Amino acid sequence: MTRYKLTIEYDGTGLAGWQRQKDAMTVQELLEDAIFNLTQEKTEIFASGRTDAGVHALAQIAHVDINKDIKTYSIMQGINFYLQGKSVVITNIEVVDDEFHARFDAKKRYYQYKIINRRSPLALRKNRAWNIHPELNIELMKEGAKYLIGEHDFTSFRAAACQAKHAMRSIDKIEINRHDDLILIDVEAISFLHHMVRNIVGTLKMVATEEWNPKKVQEALEAKDRKAAGPTAPACGLYFVKVDY
Amino acid sequence: MTRYKLTIEYDGTGLAGWQRQKDAMTVQELLEDAIFNLTQEKTEIFASGRTDAGVHALAQIAHVDINKDIKTYSIMQGINFYLQGKSVVITNIEVVDDEFHARFDAKKRYYQYKIINRRSPLALRKNRAWNIHPELNIELMKEGAKYLIGEHDFTSFRAAACQAKHAMRSIDKIEINRHDDLILIDVEAISFLHHMVRNIVGTLKMVATEEWNPKKVQEALEAKDRKAAGPTAPACGLYFVKVDY
Repeated sequence: MTRYKLTIEYDGTGLAGWQRQKDAMTVQELLEDAIFNLTQEKTEIFASGRTDAGVHALAQIAHVDINKDIKTYSIMQGINFYLQGKSVVITNIEVVDDEFHARFDAKKRYYQYKIINRRSPLALRKNRAWNIHPELNIELMKEGAKYLIGEHDFTSFRAAACQAKHAMRSIDKIEINRHDDLILIDVEAISFLHHMVRNIVGTLKMVATEEWNPKKVQEALEAKDRKAAGPTAPACGLYFVKVDY
Repeated sequence: MTRYKLTIEYDGTGLAGWQRQKDAMTVQELLEDAIFNLTQEKTEIFASGRTDAGVHALAQIAHVDINKDIKTYSIMQGINFYLQGKSVVITNIEVVDDEFHARFDAKKRYYQYKIINRRSPLALRKNRAWNIHPELNIELMKEGAKYLIGEHDFTSFRAAACQAKHAMRSIDKIEINRHDDLILIDVEAISFLHHMVRNIVGTLKMVATEEWNPKKVQEALEAKDRKAAGPTAPACGLYFVKVDY
């Protein structure tokens, strides 16, 4: 048995997220099926973190154990062969220690959220960003984001379905940059709650449209109540960027 | 009658290019149909330049005459309404002088070609770039590109179907940059021949893989023979960026 660390890129459009589900196609199922086609082995693949339906990944990390003796690079080529026509691809493969765990060994996770701030709909970047029509004030957005940095109880930014034991999380960084009509929100933390980045973005959007005072972000956080924060931003704008180990 | 200058973004995937055709959907037809749905007027829309099947546009420019009295911004909204679900969108509209011509008044055209240079296939940027597996040497590519700058007879880089009266063109700039696995080739000229950018990229790729010496680009140019230059690069990597007037 050899344990492999896979780097995975996917376009989440039309997929029901990472985790295997009944009656819906997921990244996990596509990968396990491709590995089965290659090796005839039933494997279970573990990701650094699950992503929701419609969320994309630039470099998701997962590990899987394979018994069959195949050259490392040929495993990547073989999986990609069986993934042809799907929106999932392996971009790197490494042999790792049998103790390596994609989820539990992760030291830091990076997400990016893309907003296209313009009055016309999207053509080239459809399903790749959140299209917001009113002019956004990113200086106010940055001010609101400051209240979220550091260790807090993020109950207000957590999906009802979240399975984590508690809502204490520590955000290392929220960086917001604008390049013409593109607004990039980069968020870094050891780990995240379910919908946490999308709920943060949905809340900061309320500040950016000047419907909310930046200070209201702090109030939302302190309320420890999902209803106190803003709506969940659409999945299509969210990218799982990378993981540090 | 009022003449409008439209800025148009499109995802060329699945479209048969700009120009109206029998039996294939084109950007021109989608736009003229949307304008008809909005105004009940049969119009003819003129682009700054035609693009081929599969080629994208960030800011194609076109002009069209409309008689119906509708507020300028409402025309853009109305066209976009009727374009819903299509991969074409109007991103800006301006009233222009009745003498303005999108094609004949263009002073400079900008194209960008995107290559993703990696061994794995594309997921997120599928149909958005040319995926080249072998490691490319962009320093050699830059050396080869130098021979094409300035005024030359570009017969070797012109499609057989090209309708231009002669092949003399003047390239102002070819800039090549790499950001990780992404290689961007920016080309600027007053005007281009049919397939000219794609034939240039296909030729520079031969240099970048070290199959060709950079000097061979000059020989290809001087041969004034399409067969002397490299193959035509795929349409999906090409973006019509903008036009100066």
